[in-house]
Amino acid sequence: MTTTTRTAPAHLYAHVQDFYARHMHLVDEGRVEEWGETFTPDATISNNANPRPAHGRDAIVAVIRRTHAELAARGIQHRHWMGMLAVEPLDDHTVRATSYALLLATTPGATPQIDRSTRCEDELVLVNGDWQIRTRRVHHDGLA
Amino acid sequence: MTTTTRTAPAHLYAHVQDFYARHMHLVDEGRVEEWGETFTPDATISNNANPRPAHGRDAIVAVIRRTHAELAARGIQHRHWMGMLAVEPLDDHTVRATSYALLLATTPGATPQIDRSTRCEDELVLVNGDWQIRTRRVHHDGLA
Amino acid sequence: MTTTTRTAPAHLYAHVQDFYARHMHLVDEGRVEEWGETFTPDATISNNANPRPAHGRDAIVAVIRRTHAELAARGIQHRHWMGMLAVEPLDDHTVRATSYALLLATTPGATPQIDRSTRCEDELVLVNGDWQIRTRRVHHDGLA
Repeated sequence: MTTTTRTAPAHLYAHVQDFYARHMHLVDEGRVEEWGETFTPDATISNNANPRPAHGRDAIVAVIRRTHAELAARGIQHRHWMGMLAVEPLDDHTVRATSYALLLATTPGATPQIDRSTRCEDELVLVNGDWQIRTRRVHHDGLA
Repeated sequence: MTTTTRTAPAHLYAHVQDFYARHMHLVDEGRVEEWGETFTPDATISNNANPRPAHGRDAIVAVIRRTHAELAARGIQHRHWMGMLAVEPLDDHTVRATSYALLLATTPGATPQIDRSTRCEDELVLVNGDWQIRTRRVHHDGLA
Repeated sequence: MTTTTRTAPAHLYAHVQDFYARHMHLVDEGRVEEWGETFTPDATISNNANPRPAHGRDAIVAVIRRTHAELAARGIQHRHWMGMLAVEPLDDHTVRATSYALLLATTPGATPQIDRSTRCEDELVLVNGDWQIRTRRVHHDGLA
């Protein structure tokens, strides 16, 4: 992880926080097409659990559509929490956003469980006045 | 849930975050009268667990006063965490704030437990320079 | 705890959030020397679990260096989450920051556990354009 040394201006920081909230609300509601639009068409996602990164919005959306269908069938509600956000401007239209993310899962009648703890490093680009994720690198904690 | 499409200006976003922090600190310390003042006198709270919504600041405060007395008797510390906040301005004095909220409970000598995961949609109004909650709609995850 | 009554300007609020993110990233990566520089040289940390507060950056760093070595030996990943931040300006270079903090621990092959829930009150000073912690008072929930 590259720790941010330059600080983002306040308006940029708030805008990125608001973007992530809307991004996570969409995936947790299963609105996968709209969620897909929070990535650039050529976006990539990689993580330390899967040797094959996902390339392109269509591939990314397909994975999440399957996941959401499985959760819906079992009545499980996911909530993605992102926090400890550091934002570093790279140029006028690009920032690096480093954060922690938790996946919280609630099964009917049970208490919420923390499924996963991660560190997330995104490169975001400004497109038509809102952010899109161009690259996402996720580190899952606790891989054996 | 209505997902936010318009983004709040940065000064407004930070102000709403700070408001929620103070709002949650008050309830978790049992300062229920001051907490009540973070609602409008005619505020309503509704959720998917209880068919009867609470109407008015007095009714809202009465419920929480009982809850806090029970917790204090058992030595349980509640911490309300709110996150993934999206803020949408409705007019010059009103915003819709959509967020996730966790209730974390710690019993003496035990590790903290997540009691409840929720999605929260508030309508906030600006009164004398600070926010008040006019309507709160809470969705509790995992109701059987 | 002193609950904040005055609200911080937006630029200050965002800057403090970004500071805490970088502060927590450093400690969770074990970059203890750089983390130490987020405290003033004469900083103090106190909490309700230990009658002896730590005085000075060197003492603070020494404690965390030992903790991190133990975690690394056991393969445990800590993630410090801070939230519900209220920021109150005290003067042009000083703020009081009141927040909640969670310690999340992940052991290889296991799900993440919340080790500790706390309330944290820091006094931050602006030094060369970034914040440093001058005093930290932590309240650990659930002490028997």
